[in-house]
Amino acid sequence: MTNHISLAQGREYLAIPGPSVMPDAVLQAMHRPSPNIYDGELIEMMPALTRDLCRVARTKHNVAIYIANGHGTWEAALSNVIAPGEVVLAPASGRFTHGWAEMAEGIGATAQLIDFGSSKAWELDRIADALRADTARQIKAVLAVHVDTSSSIRNDIPALRALLDDLGHPALLMADCIASLGCDRFEMDAWGVDVTVSACQKGLMTPAGMGFVFFNDKAQEKRAAMPRVSQYWDWQKRTNPELFYQYFNGTAPTHHLYGLRAALDMIHAEGLDHVWARHERLATAIWAACEIWAEGGALHLNVADRAHRSHAVTALRLTDGRGTPLRSFTESQLGLTLGIGLGMEDWDGCFRLGHMGHVNGQMVMAMLGGVETAMAALDIPRGQGALDAAAAALAARTITQS
Amino acid sequence: MTNHISLAQGREYLAIPGPSVMPDAVLQAMHRPSPNIYDGELIEMMPALTRDLCRVARTKHNVAIYIANGHGTWEAALSNVIAPGEVVLAPASGRFTHGWAEMAEGIGATAQLIDFGSSKAWELDRIADALRADTARQIKAVLAVHVDTSSSIRNDIPALRALLDDLGHPALLMADCIASLGCDRFEMDAWGVDVTVSACQKGLMTPAGMGFVFFNDKAQEKRAAMPRVSQYWDWQKRTNPELFYQYFNGTAPTHHLYGLRAALDMIHAEGLDHVWARHERLATAIWAACEIWAEGGALHLNVADRAHRSHAVTALRLTDGRGTPLRSFTESQLGLTLGIGLGMEDWDGCFRLGHMGHVNGQMVMAMLGGVETAMAALDIPRGQGALDAAAAALAARTITQS
Amino acid sequence: MTNHISLAQGREYLAIPGPSVMPDAVLQAMHRPSPNIYDGELIEMMPALTRDLCRVARTKHNVAIYIANGHGTWEAALSNVIAPGEVVLAPASGRFTHGWAEMAEGIGATAQLIDFGSSKAWELDRIADALRADTARQIKAVLAVHVDTSSSIRNDIPALRALLDDLGHPALLMADCIASLGCDRFEMDAWGVDVTVSACQKGLMTPAGMGFVFFNDKAQEKRAAMPRVSQYWDWQKRTNPELFYQYFNGTAPTHHLYGLRAALDMIHAEGLDHVWARHERLATAIWAACEIWAEGGALHLNVADRAHRSHAVTALRLTDGRGTPLRSFTESQLGLTLGIGLGMEDWDGCFRLGHMGHVNGQMVMAMLGGVETAMAALDIPRGQGALDAAAAALAARTITQS
Amino acid sequence: MTNHISLAQGREYLAIPGPSVMPDAVLQAMHRPSPNIYDGELIEMMPALTRDLCRVARTKHNVAIYIANGHGTWEAALSNVIAPGEVVLAPASGRFTHGWAEMAEGIGATAQLIDFGSSKAWELDRIADALRADTARQIKAVLAVHVDTSSSIRNDIPALRALLDDLGHPALLMADCIASLGCDRFEMDAWGVDVTVSACQKGLMTPAGMGFVFFNDKAQEKRAAMPRVSQYWDWQKRTNPELFYQYFNGTAPTHHLYGLRAALDMIHAEGLDHVWARHERLATAIWAACEIWAEGGALHLNVADRAHRSHAVTALRLTDGRGTPLRSFTESQLGLTLGIGLGMEDWDGCFRLGHMGHVNGQMVMAMLGGVETAMAALDIPRGQGALDAAAAALAARTITQS
Repeated sequence: MTNHISLAQGREYLAIPGPSVMPDAVLQAMHRPSPNIYDGELIEMMPALTRDLCRVARTKHNVAIYIANGHGTWEAALSNVIAPGEVVLAPASGRFTHGWAEMAEGIGATAQLIDFGSSKAWELDRIADALRADTARQIKAVLAVHVDTSSSIRNDIPALRALLDDLGHPALLMADCIASLGCDRFEMDAWGVDVTVSACQKGLMTPAGMGFVFFNDKAQEKRAAMPRVSQYWDWQKRTNPELFYQYFNGTAPTHHLYGLRAALDMIHAEGLDHVWARHERLATAIWAACEIWAEGGALHLNVADRAHRSHAVTALRLTDGRGTPLRSFTESQLGLTLGIGLGMEDWDGCFRLGHMGHVNGQMVMAMLGGVETAMAALDIPRGQGALDAAAAALAARTITQS
Repeated sequence: MTNHISLAQGREYLAIPGPSVMPDAVLQAMHRPSPNIYDGELIEMMPALTRDLCRVARTKHNVAIYIANGHGTWEAALSNVIAPGEVVLAPASGRFTHGWAEMAEGIGATAQLIDFGSSKAWELDRIADALRADTARQIKAVLAVHVDTSSSIRNDIPALRALLDDLGHPALLMADCIASLGCDRFEMDAWGVDVTVSACQKGLMTPAGMGFVFFNDKAQEKRAAMPRVSQYWDWQKRTNPELFYQYFNGTAPTHHLYGLRAALDMIHAEGLDHVWARHERLATAIWAACEIWAEGGALHLNVADRAHRSHAVTALRLTDGRGTPLRSFTESQLGLTLGIGLGMEDWDGCFRLGHMGHVNGQMVMAMLGGVETAMAALDIPRGQGALDAAAAALAARTITQS
Repeated sequence: MTNHISLAQGREYLAIPGPSVMPDAVLQAMHRPSPNIYDGELIEMMPALTRDLCRVARTKHNVAIYIANGHGTWEAALSNVIAPGEVVLAPASGRFTHGWAEMAEGIGATAQLIDFGSSKAWELDRIADALRADTARQIKAVLAVHVDTSSSIRNDIPALRALLDDLGHPALLMADCIASLGCDRFEMDAWGVDVTVSACQKGLMTPAGMGFVFFNDKAQEKRAAMPRVSQYWDWQKRTNPELFYQYFNGTAPTHHLYGLRAALDMIHAEGLDHVWARHERLATAIWAACEIWAEGGALHLNVADRAHRSHAVTALRLTDGRGTPLRSFTESQLGLTLGIGLGMEDWDGCFRLGHMGHVNGQMVMAMLGGVETAMAALDIPRGQGALDAAAAALAARTITQS
Repeated sequence: MTNHISLAQGREYLAIPGPSVMPDAVLQAMHRPSPNIYDGELIEMMPALTRDLCRVARTKHNVAIYIANGHGTWEAALSNVIAPGEVVLAPASGRFTHGWAEMAEGIGATAQLIDFGSSKAWELDRIADALRADTARQIKAVLAVHVDTSSSIRNDIPALRALLDDLGHPALLMADCIASLGCDRFEMDAWGVDVTVSACQKGLMTPAGMGFVFFNDKAQEKRAAMPRVSQYWDWQKRTNPELFYQYFNGTAPTHHLYGLRAALDMIHAEGLDHVWARHERLATAIWAACEIWAEGGALHLNVADRAHRSHAVTALRLTDGRGTPLRSFTESQLGLTLGIGLGMEDWDGCFRLGHMGHVNGQMVMAMLGGVETAMAALDIPRGQGALDAAAAALAARTITQS
């Protein structure tokens, strides 16, 4: 009898762009009995938890925690500030802005979409045109996806803020940082973001199931003026609770809170600036490898401009369309799971590398080594020395400025 | 130096009415890396998971799973079948019907409340009067809380169904089984319930953070006729997904699904009829002790009629109002945490015993033994032999019929 | 179809006299990747670990940690101080002294046994006779089991020390504290014990698999004079290692060390005096119940004299011999596992309650409530009100002196 | 302020030659309450556990399980078959044979050492000379280390067997498979090995703390003829227990047994032949990279001959002696911990790669990628394209024969 052998038996590495790799400390913290939800440590840990969560978004304002995924926070945020009949502007560089816009339609708003395709960052001119055209100021919010997980495009939020300011447009600036929080630099207050939505399963390294809406005073003013807000999504009691259960409008997500506490401890122990610098350096090494592979002509980075590439996810396209066989090989033969192409017409030919959260140098070499191995196995033409280039990028001595 | 000593150092027993005690198998199943969310075992386990979940509600129809607590499922269920301006009828035997009714108001409906106080089950006559008075059929749904966690009242759902049928009233019968699913007998289809909401952290023995909405064809007809439904709460794609992420409108609650799978395995291995019989027997033993304590005049069961007592939670009231000291004693001196009084004017004098889900004979004796010890320590007058009576009730040989 | 129902589905309580109930903190600490064994935190934590372990035995001297169970530490201790041909004196109040004596024979020593049966503590006069008769000073050690786990007898170590001193006999005093360390008061240095053996799975609350040998300078003198000592058991390098691996003569028991660290943290956070006082109080409550049950004539405590009862285990005997059915009932019907009778001729009629380590008031009530229930189910005659008496004992306000 | 950044924050990879990487399934299985040790599943699982353990050693004979590390099993095995005054022959290709020989001296035997240094496999001629010279047949056993963890030499056990047979020498053939069991092909019965010692923390993927001694009838004959055997190490009762506790001479290593059960399930689900083939292929890829690096002249594989290289560990030497800085870099900058040089005079210049047990393709690329990165950072001259060569080796389609 003869057999092909698999080299997958070992620690599996899930290198998709979320859920990310969960730290042991987080999983340990969640392996525990349910706590009392009326008294004791869980209740007492909330003020520091929300404060440390706000520190990750670099805001001194408020955060409401939802038992929900990222899509849930889209609806939660919208429900607090957009009434049926109002308009939102949605400049889309990938799939997720479309989703958020649909969510807005679902609550009765009108979404005005500007589509930049799935490989380009915002063109500010086109956004400016739309805002200038809105002389009636019907646009109440701009839905700004910071990093699009499908395309791996990173948009320039401060530039959008400057644009709104220049035009004197009063729309709220709402940022989706689901794929960037705790990965790419994001400074809510300094950047003038009014509402930020995010979730726990990417840069925040906690199993999926919890989302966050940060908001400032301007957003709260709009909330206060709303005719009616869903009880469940209402962020008011969640941020000024008289009783613990009001934080979550009902039973708290007990185990997730312990997990999040452990994750925030790790982030702040490392230092948020260092977390960002680490993601940047790891991304640089990944790009170094990918750009060499690309020399073979068979593989392309979805985002050409380094300045608009996420530090947390990298979307790639194989000219010959064999993205799915490549992913199958790494998963079944090497124990490495890569992300599928998402939101692309030729999704089957694409794949994505997730490098968000609990990721270090040896993991990046595993991920790239797996891709090299798969390309070798599938005879995909590629530039040589990609892995050496990545290693060199990781080895480079870097000075960061905080 | 002298010290009082505490006898709390040991395994803590959280005997509150939810979150309940989590089985080791559930916590083990959740202590794992995040799975792939696009392919593989997580995706493959969904059909059996939803089927086995429906079996717990005794329905052959549909279930939508939400990343949400019980309050979230209230809003989810209402959002699918109640449009702004419509009316719901809310017969309240305790606190939670009020909460659900407020949630209905939050989405723009009008809630017509019938308040039976916090110690009495529904009086069907009064409900009948309200339904008869609704000649215009404006009432689109009756919000029926099966077991109220605050009062420990268990209401008679089949009788309500019969009433609706007798009156020919077309309102949907919506049941809240958050505190009863997997504890008290509940048969959605046989009882003619149209929509059932529940959550995972009580009888389903999974850490808080996931909720369920079961619905039948009649409910779906109403859904189909809705002018607009929130994208996030919409149950349609969640129950007929083309892609896995549509089950959850975004990222799946990965770890909770593994936990729930383990919990459902335990329930069906024991057998649902046996689960119900076990809860009934344990409740009977608890009542036996409480009724003897009550002979001392200092303690009362909130629900006088055994036929309307939950098998999963028991609310008690101390005449002298020392509920809080009693709970403090069991927690700080014995390692036993009891539930606070909830929704009562004299809540401070009340306390609740949770006996839902992963509960067996030795745990019931621990809970009752702790209460006896606290009453002894606080010199609360009470009938003697309560624990012996509970033991005798547990010891009785029982024949159950399935 | 009819069924008998079981009330066992719920958290299982293992109330045997070791392995005891493991705290969540210990299990969490052990759920982790293997650490580096050549550098880093594991190596660095050893000095504090051995120091904190010595504090539990109240010694300022040395401890060698073995990957072994309690029986292993018997051989380890003997191997360091007893050469083939030498004599040990073994006063036995239960099964385990016999086992230790056989171990001594196994390494070529001669064991001189004094058998006090399985229900009586040492009679010092008979021990004195044996020591006086040893005019040639051939007895090199007295094997003194502090608490015998089978009989639940607690012997008086300080009295034995005084006897040796009075007689001027130079034999080493070797104490087996496997069932008493971290439960019953034991003070190695103050009591003049030369060698103490113990293990991790009882009062030290760590999964079975690690044992300890504490020794003082007098014992070390004897070690130094030994003609030859097994490399593996030799305690010298284990207590004065130049390299980390010498602590364990090879690979360290990595995960157990993390578990032990967590357990020691709990013990010292509570305070060792408080730990002892807690065990004493819990034992008193257990005895209160047992003594009332005994009034029915059907059950007896194995040890009549409270002064010689262990605070960590209680051996009981049913007159009608139905120990096994009683244990079967509690396990299969209530989720409570009791210890079997051990080392008794009528072992089948005996059973034991373990109450060592991570045990609190609610657990004691569960254990006693389970026994009461089983006796009710089996119609075993017994005094009434045993549980109320135990509750009263737990409720009593106690002043302890540290 | 400026900072150097570390890229270590992420999942740490411990790539030392034992303890190896523990599978999640093993750690999950160990995260549980202590079981009953007198009745129930733990007892019932022993026959299948010992059988499945024997299958890993390819023997139909016996295995005794010890709570001990590998060094403990050396003493255990020797104690059963070697009496004080007897002679053992110890052909050493690395450090560990020396250790085993010292252990033999510790129990009173004489060890006759043949030292082949730390980079060469056995020379059978020299062993033959020693055996021929033993005309009095005083040599009772040959201590044969299959794979030496320090040098990464793999010796040829079947050749040694053939030699003994050719010479008609009756000495027992005792093999140390601590670093090879479950990694390199080893067939106890077919190869004519009489006693095999191993431990759980390498190829068997279970946290350190348990060891195994396999033995056949010939070894048992020698055991039966021994004048006296330590009670604790005696393998007789451990393999023919009347009562469960005799398996372990006292309390069982409860949690380790559950861990081992999970590990054996994984091994046999994959298939032992496949496990061996996977290790071989991974080793081949590692060698491919190392041999290219070696072209730079700065790095050497300790074992020149591929036929004598372990498939589980690879020892390397840096000409410039910077082994320690290299390991420090990978650990502190990349999250990758490599093994120290062991048993070499220039140990500081050496390092080892562990690739045993739960290891797959992506892990090998991580390990090699980490070494490449460190060599780049330290400017160590090396051949280029080592990682590409490893990837190519992993990618190669292989047919294995079982």
